[in-house]
Amino acid sequence: MEEKSKILVIGATGKLGYHIAEASLKFRHPTFALVRDSAFSDPFKAQKLHSLSNAGATLLKGSLEDEASIVEAVKLVDVVICAVSAKQTSLQKLLIQVIKQVGSIKRFIPSEFGSDPTKVLVSELEDGYNFYAPKVEIRRLVEAEGIPYTCISCNFFMRILLPSLVQPGLKAPPRDKVTIFGDGNTKGVFMKESDVAAFTITAVDDPRTLNKVLYLRPPGNVCSLNELVEMWETKIGKKLEKLHVSEGELLEKIRGTSFPANFEMLFIYSAFIKGDHTYFDIESSSGVNGTGLYPHLEYTTVSEFLDTLV
Amino acid sequence: MEEKSKILVIGATGKLGYHIAEASLKFRHPTFALVRDSAFSDPFKAQKLHSLSNAGATLLKGSLEDEASIVEAVKLVDVVICAVSAKQTSLQKLLIQVIKQVGSIKRFIPSEFGSDPTKVLVSELEDGYNFYAPKVEIRRLVEAEGIPYTCISCNFFMRILLPSLVQPGLKAPPRDKVTIFGDGNTKGVFMKESDVAAFTITAVDDPRTLNKVLYLRPPGNVCSLNELVEMWETKIGKKLEKLHVSEGELLEKIRGTSFPANFEMLFIYSAFIKGDHTYFDIESSSGVNGTGLYPHLEYTTVSEFLDTLV
Repeated sequence: MEEKSKILVIGATGKLGYHIAEASLKFRHPTFALVRDSAFSDPFKAQKLHSLSNAGATLLKGSLEDEASIVEAVKLVDVVICAVSAKQTSLQKLLIQVIKQVGSIKRFIPSEFGSDPTKVLVSELEDGYNFYAPKVEIRRLVEAEGIPYTCISCNFFMRILLPSLVQPGLKAPPRDKVTIFGDGNTKGVFMKESDVAAFTITAVDDPRTLNKVLYLRPPGNVCSLNELVEMWETKIGKKLEKLHVSEGELLEKIRGTSFPANFEMLFIYSAFIKGDHTYFDIESSSGVNGTGLYPHLEYTTVSEFLDTLV
Repeated sequence: MEEKSKILVIGATGKLGYHIAEASLKFRHPTFALVRDSAFSDPFKAQKLHSLSNAGATLLKGSLEDEASIVEAVKLVDVVICAVSAKQTSLQKLLIQVIKQVGSIKRFIPSEFGSDPTKVLVSELEDGYNFYAPKVEIRRLVEAEGIPYTCISCNFFMRILLPSLVQPGLKAPPRDKVTIFGDGNTKGVFMKESDVAAFTITAVDDPRTLNKVLYLRPPGNVCSLNELVEMWETKIGKKLEKLHVSEGELLEKIRGTSFPANFEMLFIYSAFIKGDHTYFDIESSSGVNGTGLYPHLEYTTVSEFLDTLV
């Protein structure tokens, strides 16, 4: 019989978590989801849960704030994947203590799933902006407790900024004028959630990803604003008028707005001006490249995503 | 996502139960096993549990005598398959009450897995011989509680009498003399456990088997003692000397021995003299034929089994 690790997904009714639970089932892992009682009375979440359960996921009632429920759930599985939202990052502390106590978890994937929080340069920008600090704290706690882990650095999800061609406030790509932030040459990374989920599930049983960060930077998904605009112009067969916003002007706008209203601009500043996604090389002591490890995995490129918007 | 019912196997460290858990995993059902704490300290059972767990089964600690453990387990699944030994038949009563209370089980397979206990003619033979009475009681209880069920009537397991060519006390088929019980023309049925397991798992989600007995009588697995001996003679290229034991002589021997020491003779009497496996036709109101429903399922025939003994 083929060996299959058992996977617990926390946050399975969330956007990424749902894809992770789906991928876990697709790759034939026994799949469990820790679900709050209240989720069953939310029609949208209930539908997701129904779909996951039908496909074979086992729903366990509980939450990150209910220790007994975490203990029960963690005891049933080999792998824990946490995909809670950024604002719930610190709730993982109790989970980490439970994983430490139970002692049988072979891999823990904490809820990072963005830029590598230990690498971002933008994090010290604003006093009230502590998006990454709790993620760093959680990473350090996992390391200190000696829990086997893998962190997934997938950078941007395509649904966040790509539908507007990185134009804050727009819902669709512009067809006349486009704003370029900075010089437009710094490269960011966009990944589709379902692709992140497939890489994550593929990584959980791989000894090469043990206690490492898995960086997702697939060819076709790394591009600058200038490249992005040019790609779009080719697809719609029309040149756009370029407006330019300098680093100083962007910073001023960010400071004139408060988090989270300014999050799109903050993310643009982080990725396309500071270069948080790509300024550093992957060090083999601490990181691995997803597409290098798993060349067989298919993924949606930026160009393919833009095709759906033409 | 493909729909997959979740299956709880009770008795997964037993001979049949292990094959059922294996088949459940093979057919990609989320698979759970209710396991006594003591099983983990039995090296043989622990190895089976390790193998099932590695292949993806979730082991839940508990037993049929621990109500809380059954409630927890039953809540996690859609289907319960009980494969406990005949002497534990009555322990299913608490399980049935729990299934009734929890109310979400779509199919229950009680531990019958032999001759249909409601059909056997031999059951009233001996005062102390109540092998089938508890199974009938359980079937009636399941029906009375309105629990959706399927019973599996698989008749003999090949490992019981076939290795000796139905010669009580022998460990291998005879090569000189063979005893024929009765006239040798009454047909019995032999099934391999792993095949019974595959038919069982295939049946659990099938509306055609709801509240029915699934009878396993595959072509190639139904044969009389005379046919069995002839098949063996052909395989070894030698005629055997036939000894004959009449119904009366066999009964006398059975009565001179006590249960369970006389169980081989009792089973021979039941199948090859009374015809308990095959004397009745399958009534469509209460039963279905396994090979009729699932012609794609492969199985080991009596001839193929005998080939391994030549």
